[in-house]
Amino acid sequence: MGARAHGAGAMSALPLALTMGDPAGIGPEITAGAWKRLRAEGPVFAWLGDPACLPAGMPVQEIEEIGDASAVFAEALPVLPMRLPVPVRAGEPDPANAQTVIDSIARAVGLARAGAAGGVVTNPISKAVLRRAGFPHPGHTEFLAELCHVPGREVMMLASPMLRVVPVTIHVSLRDALDMLDEAMIVETARTTAQALKRDFGIASPRLAIAGLNPHAGEGGMMGREEIETIIPSIERLRAEGLDVQGPMPPDTMFTQTARERYDAALCMYHDQALIPLKTLDMANGVNVTLGLPIVRTSPDHGTAFDIAGKGVAEPQSLVAALRLAGELAHNRQVFGKGEGA
Amino acid sequence: MGARAHGAGAMSALPLALTMGDPAGIGPEITAGAWKRLRAEGPVFAWLGDPACLPAGMPVQEIEEIGDASAVFAEALPVLPMRLPVPVRAGEPDPANAQTVIDSIARAVGLARAGAAGGVVTNPISKAVLRRAGFPHPGHTEFLAELCHVPGREVMMLASPMLRVVPVTIHVSLRDALDMLDEAMIVETARTTAQALKRDFGIASPRLAIAGLNPHAGEGGMMGREEIETIIPSIERLRAEGLDVQGPMPPDTMFTQTARERYDAALCMYHDQALIPLKTLDMANGVNVTLGLPIVRTSPDHGTAFDIAGKGVAEPQSLVAALRLAGELAHNRQVFGKGEGA
Repeated sequence: MGARAHGAGAMSALPLALTMGDPAGIGPEITAGAWKRLRAEGPVFAWLGDPACLPAGMPVQEIEEIGDASAVFAEALPVLPMRLPVPVRAGEPDPANAQTVIDSIARAVGLARAGAAGGVVTNPISKAVLRRAGFPHPGHTEFLAELCHVPGREVMMLASPMLRVVPVTIHVSLRDALDMLDEAMIVETARTTAQALKRDFGIASPRLAIAGLNPHAGEGGMMGREEIETIIPSIERLRAEGLDVQGPMPPDTMFTQTARERYDAALCMYHDQALIPLKTLDMANGVNVTLGLPIVRTSPDHGTAFDIAGKGVAEPQSLVAALRLAGELAHNRQVFGKGEGA
Repeated sequence: MGARAHGAGAMSALPLALTMGDPAGIGPEITAGAWKRLRAEGPVFAWLGDPACLPAGMPVQEIEEIGDASAVFAEALPVLPMRLPVPVRAGEPDPANAQTVIDSIARAVGLARAGAAGGVVTNPISKAVLRRAGFPHPGHTEFLAELCHVPGREVMMLASPMLRVVPVTIHVSLRDALDMLDEAMIVETARTTAQALKRDFGIASPRLAIAGLNPHAGEGGMMGREEIETIIPSIERLRAEGLDVQGPMPPDTMFTQTARERYDAALCMYHDQALIPLKTLDMANGVNVTLGLPIVRTSPDHGTAFDIAGKGVAEPQSLVAALRLAGELAHNRQVFGKGEGA
C-alpha cells in the first residue's frame, strides 16, 4: 500500500453518525469504549440509539441536532435518542426492537445524504433477528445501497493499515462464486474501487492488483481456464480505460509484504481469498468500507457477538478503526471529491 | 501451534542427502549459501551434484560415502559427485542434463531408505524441463512416493515456525478441487498428518483444525453444503478414531494468532486456502514437507528461479529452514518412530 497509512490523516469537520446496531449485542459497550478512546482526538461522532442500554456510569449528552455533537464530544457521548419499545437484555435480541434498529440506520443515512453528517458508521446487526421482524434485505450493505437509491452498485472493501482487499464475489458458496464470476463483475468492481481510492483515500494514481482464481493463477491454463477466459480480458479492458492494473497474480504470493507494497488494493475473486490474508495479518484493525455509495460508510469487521455482550469484555478496537477511517474518508471526499458524482 | 517451534530441536546424527535440483536454477548457489549458514551448527548434509556448477571459490570436498560428510562438513561442502554431461549455463536449463538431475533424486532416496542418510532434502527442479526429457511424473513429490513404493500415499505439508498447513487437494483448478473433494480424501489426509505430527514432529497428542470450504464454513448450509455433506461427516469419523479434531472452522478467522495457538496443523480444502496464510505470514521460512513416505523429505518452498540464477542474489533462507527441519524430523523419527511402519 502507499505511504498514506489509513487513520493517520486529517479528520472530517462534520460529525459522523454512528448507528445503534442490535442493542442486545456488543454495540452499546463498544460505542462507549470507542468514545473513551476518541474523545480527546476525534473524530467526533453521535450515536443514534437508546441511552438506556449504554453501560452504567457512561457520561451521555442527549442532543437534538447532530451539529451539536462537536461541542459536547470531549465531555460526554453525544446521543441522538432513538427509544426502544422493549427493555434490552444483553445477549438476548428481541425482534420487538428491530424496527428501531432499522430506523437508526435510515436516520444515519438521511443525515449523511443531507450533508449534516460526514459519514455513517454502523454497529453490528443480526440479519437473522431483523429478518424475523420482516427486514427484506440480504444484509446491512444492501439496505444502505437501497436507502441511497443505488442498489447493486455497492462494493465491499476490507481495509486495515497493512492491506486493502475487495472481494468481487462475496457471501455465496465457493461453487456459486465460480459460477457467477464474469468479466462485467470484475470490471465494474475494479472501476468502483479505483474511483474510491482516488476520491475517498486520496490516492492520485491508484494501483490495483487483480488475483487469479486458481493455484499459481492457473499456470497458463494447466490448472483452470478462468484466468485466460475471464480475468485477463477484464484486465485488458481496465488497462484500455487507463487504469493501473496488475495481474492475474498467483493468489498465494500476492499478500507478502514485498508484494503488498506494489499495490493500493487487491481485487479478489472470492470471499476467503480476500478475508484470509486480511484477518491473518491484522484481525483487530480490519474495517469494512462500502464503496460505490454517495455517502461514506464504514463498519467494524465483526458481528453482534451476543455470546459476550454485556460482560464488559468486548474489544472496541475495530469500531475505533472504523470511526477513524470514516473521519479520514469524509475529509478526503471533501478535498478530492469536488464536482464528482457518486 | 504447540510450544515446540520447529527447527529448534536436536539434530539427526545421520547426514542428510541434498539433491542437485536443476543445475541451471538457483540450486547450486543456495546450496553453497546454506552450507555457509549451517557449517558450524549443522545439520550435516551432503550434496549430490556436480561440483563444476557451484559458485567459484566455494570450498568443496568430494566424498565417496555419505557417512564421510560429518568429518569434513565444518571445513567444506561435502559432495557426492554426479557429473553432468553438458556444461551448465545459469538460467538456461538443458534437457540433456535432466537424467542426472533425476538420478540425483533417486540416489538420495536410496541412501535414506538404506539408512545411510537421515532424510532427503530436494533442491528445486523444473517439471517442464524434466518432462521434455521424458520424466513421466506430475512432480517431485509423486516421483518420491513412487521411488518409495507408496504412490498415492504422499501428503504435502507446508510448515513455517508460525503455521503448519496441509492442503487436501493440491495442484488442480479450484473447480476440480470442488469436484474431487470427498470424505475419504479428508479422512486419509488427516490420518497421515496426525501420524506424522506424532512420529516426526514429536507431538504426543496432535490437534488438527479442519477448515470449512465456504465463507463462514457455510453458515449452516446457507452458503454451500459441502460442510454438512462431506466435512462434518469426516470430522465425526476422525473423532470416532480418537483423533483430536476441531472444525469445520470458518476459513477467514482460523489463521489469526489466537486461533493458531489452538492447533498443531490446519487441514485445508484447497491449495490457496493453505498457501495464502502460510506465505502471507512468513514467506522466507516456509518448508515443504512430504508426509506419508517411509523416509523424511523436505524441500524449500520455491522454484528454480531461472530468472535470477547465477546472479548471486538468491536467498538460501528457505533451503536452510528445509535442512534444519529435516534434521529435526530425522531425529524425532529415531526417538518417536520406533516400531512404527511408514
